[in-house]
Amino acid sequence: MIRTIGFDADDTLWHNENIFDRAQERYRRLLEKYHPAAEVNVALFATEMRNLRLYGYGIKGFMLSATETAIELTKGEISAAEIREILRLGQDMIAHPVELLPDAAAVVPALAKDYRLLLITKGDLRDQERKIAASGLAAHFHAIEILSEKDDAAYARVLQRHGVDPKEFAMVGNSLKSDILPILALGGAGVHMPYHLTWQHERVEEAPRHQPRFRHIERLAELPPLLPTL
Amino acid sequence: MIRTIGFDADDTLWHNENIFDRAQERYRRLLEKYHPAAEVNVALFATEMRNLRLYGYGIKGFMLSATETAIELTKGEISAAEIREILRLGQDMIAHPVELLPDAAAVVPALAKDYRLLLITKGDLRDQERKIAASGLAAHFHAIEILSEKDDAAYARVLQRHGVDPKEFAMVGNSLKSDILPILALGGAGVHMPYHLTWQHERVEEAPRHQPRFRHIERLAELPPLLPTL
Repeated sequence: MIRTIGFDADDTLWHNENIFDRAQERYRRLLEKYHPAAEVNVALFATEMRNLRLYGYGIKGFMLSATETAIELTKGEISAAEIREILRLGQDMIAHPVELLPDAAAVVPALAKDYRLLLITKGDLRDQERKIAASGLAAHFHAIEILSEKDDAAYARVLQRHGVDPKEFAMVGNSLKSDILPILALGGAGVHMPYHLTWQHERVEEAPRHQPRFRHIERLAELPPLLPTL
Repeated sequence: MIRTIGFDADDTLWHNENIFDRAQERYRRLLEKYHPAAEVNVALFATEMRNLRLYGYGIKGFMLSATETAIELTKGEISAAEIREILRLGQDMIAHPVELLPDAAAVVPALAKDYRLLLITKGDLRDQERKIAASGLAAHFHAIEILSEKDDAAYARVLQRHGVDPKEFAMVGNSLKSDILPILALGGAGVHMPYHLTWQHERVEEAPRHQPRFRHIERLAELPPLLPTL
């Protein structure tokens, strides 16, 4: 029986990847006079992966890797004014208003009456705190955990810290890799709600459909009736 | 009677500001053909303060603000290769080994036998976690709190979360502004251990010497005998 629900934040409660997507579109347009747009994505992703250990997740790391990639791809031909434009598009991302996903504003307060809710996210500390505050949902969560990585060990620490038995825990999120597979491995339930965009780093081949505690939903309104079946 | 001790991390347990200091020296040298070195610091600090709300504390924000400042100060004359050098000096900062301050390796384990220790720091999540792991001191702390800001409200939340009575709490740190004044305001004890360098943003005019629960030490070895007097 589920007593505690963990919610991912970006692309589960509010839009995020669409902001990255539009920023990358701006970035490709900025570089198109130097480099074919199709290759820009591949090069940027390679830089992001090389720098992930140094920068972690989040917009600031994206800005730094995008600047580095632009210098590489243009063989140093890019102008300072164009680099200033890369910084500006990142600053616009950080300042972007929080847009809740459908049902979030109704489902989260309703579930908070019957379950203990944890918000479990990863990324820049400051940026995640800003979005949580702006979402208007913070008061419904028993605790907010901002992690540098969402793997089995990190989830195990969070559940232990809050005295949660994994059997009584369901995690809801858009990333199979970061939200679902680690929780299934710990013996909890995983409710996958895909977002229409997935960052390449978060992609996994196949949903664990053979797992009895795995569920798939299309929108948050499907979550409350599903919880008693887990 | 003190039961719980909070330790700041950067410039209290290990060196940090000297890494920023050397990076800024490299940065000034990089820009000196464009701009007088004395004015570079002023401009960089102004950019950092303007961006603090967006970026928070830490090396990634420093790298982004240093890039932005270089473009401004050189009126866009700086080359992409020179901007790549700014990114490189930031990456070197992140990869810099952790160097403990004198006494830290002995005093922290000794105090952990008699007190509950909390590590309370601010900055980039990933970067702080890396330094805590590399310090070898993590196991002596009951909990590690990485905050986006160290003010009265943030400390009050941390103390409440761990069930700590402020009267029974002492905070040790190098910043009067971030480590000492908020704790004195909450009714706790503050032990100030200045580092030989202080970032301009952390400077306050005067130590609160009239406060009965304020102490000043020069090195960590002075801390254990002082705690029973607080």
